[in-house]
Amino acid sequence: MGQPQRLSSWRNGASRDAITHFVERVTTDGPVFVPPSERIAVFDNDGTLWPENPLPFQFAFAIDELKRKIPAEPKLGDDPMVQAALAGDLATLMGGAHFDGLMQVLALTHAGMTTVEFWAIVNNWMATAKHPHFDKPYDQVIYKPMLELLEYLRANDFKTFIVSGGGADFMRVWVERVYGIPPEQVVGSTAHTTFELREDGPVLVKTMSNVFVDDNAGKPVGIHSFIGRRPIACFGNSDGDQAMLQYTTINNPRLSFGLIVHHTDAEREYAYDSQPKSTGKLVAALEEAPKRGWTVVSMKDDWSTIF
Amino acid sequence: MGQPQRLSSWRNGASRDAITHFVERVTTDGPVFVPPSERIAVFDNDGTLWPENPLPFQFAFAIDELKRKIPAEPKLGDDPMVQAALAGDLATLMGGAHFDGLMQVLALTHAGMTTVEFWAIVNNWMATAKHPHFDKPYDQVIYKPMLELLEYLRANDFKTFIVSGGGADFMRVWVERVYGIPPEQVVGSTAHTTFELREDGPVLVKTMSNVFVDDNAGKPVGIHSFIGRRPIACFGNSDGDQAMLQYTTINNPRLSFGLIVHHTDAEREYAYDSQPKSTGKLVAALEEAPKRGWTVVSMKDDWSTIF
Repeated sequence: MGQPQRLSSWRNGASRDAITHFVERVTTDGPVFVPPSERIAVFDNDGTLWPENPLPFQFAFAIDELKRKIPAEPKLGDDPMVQAALAGDLATLMGGAHFDGLMQVLALTHAGMTTVEFWAIVNNWMATAKHPHFDKPYDQVIYKPMLELLEYLRANDFKTFIVSGGGADFMRVWVERVYGIPPEQVVGSTAHTTFELREDGPVLVKTMSNVFVDDNAGKPVGIHSFIGRRPIACFGNSDGDQAMLQYTTINNPRLSFGLIVHHTDAEREYAYDSQPKSTGKLVAALEEAPKRGWTVVSMKDDWSTIF
Repeated sequence: MGQPQRLSSWRNGASRDAITHFVERVTTDGPVFVPPSERIAVFDNDGTLWPENPLPFQFAFAIDELKRKIPAEPKLGDDPMVQAALAGDLATLMGGAHFDGLMQVLALTHAGMTTVEFWAIVNNWMATAKHPHFDKPYDQVIYKPMLELLEYLRANDFKTFIVSGGGADFMRVWVERVYGIPPEQVVGSTAHTTFELREDGPVLVKTMSNVFVDDNAGKPVGIHSFIGRRPIACFGNSDGDQAMLQYTTINNPRLSFGLIVHHTDAEREYAYDSQPKSTGKLVAALEEAPKRGWTVVSMKDDWSTIF
């Protein structure tokens, strides 16, 4: 069994106890023992493993990409949706029946190149861009208690997955290095690629067809499609994670565990999630938590270190 | 390093040597060493790990399901596509612009129930149905040399995946028990599910929307979508595997390996694959094999035991 003392950035208290108690029970011989192959743990990314403020980081990437492209294609700057993106105006982008503005910005920044080209673009952005508030590369703005939790679970033979509304292709570039999670354990939003055998070899070209949005009710759908079994542990932070928390914990034949990271620390991070209009809105899931026995982590109170 | 002597159902010869030579090179320190995390091996299923004659096994399942349903819903039997299915008339089912007949049969047998209900149906079929020729449960009609190969690769820290045109939900029921491959390492054909929180808990209802066919050019697309990195070893048996063989081996920055199982043994199994109209047609990929250095395994000559 793994050592709970590894959770050194977690303060002693009910949240930490709930985690270690659950892990001890499912890994100890007895009526609720779960064999290692069934120890599937799913983690949201934005707001759960790293922040999502002042903007979701992938959105910051898209804005930087637009800025990088405009000098060569100045007409881009005339597009009202590009203007909305550059202004960080999520409300405009998320309007329309099918998030038309957002899809347009994604088409400009996430499609029309090969998967290898996109990989290099993301990799380069991650190596050069910096978070505006923390003044560090985005992949160094990671919640230390959650890294410890990932390691603690893996030390107890859990298989850790990301299940995020973020793009799978965007995350897979850096998740192994940053979280120790291999690309094949990333469930994210996807669109189809097109296979071409070119003179210099096979490529997959990114398109915007068959977009799958791995958020809200899409999360259990994505879990089933990519993982094919029900998780026993689920970690999220917003109403977008409510469905996968439900899928993991309600009437699961296995002992199961749900946890919500509550952004309560305005000083060390952000306190935003109970505001109905914020990106990482946490209202319905927080209300459901006591009924389901989900552990609610207060970042301010439960974490001695955040980064 | 794993012991090649484990490949005991493989006769000594060029095919076996090609496999062990490749594995030894990528697992030994040197210029073509591949770190374990990058040792991704992908296996087709039908015709590669188990037979696909006299009909692909999942198709036999669909026929059995129709037969099971008709007594309660006799009108089903009037449907020309159901009649074609019961007659094993694949040509009719695969006709039409979008395999309309096949899609109709799949809708009747693979959708409209929860994923848990479907799991139980497949599990029950696997426990009760028998292969008409070999007179054994389908999950005992497995190529022993390929099981040994899966184990040999895993002993050398390869991560083994199935990449099959078969349904992911159909395969995930039994692959872990039969192949030692966990459900989350199965890439197959999929359709969306719908999440519902019912009174007795959350369910995912199988639908026929957003069908993804993991065959031909769909195989590299599926590999990218589900695994997110390029394999270094690929095992197939038909032209449906040609694109993933290309994707794995052409201009791969890593040393890579491609292998085709050629069905040459009419006595112990079937000899069918060079016939242009067979299900597991192998013409174009066989022609391409020498140019790409793909190993072609003759089941008759290279395998001392088949099952």
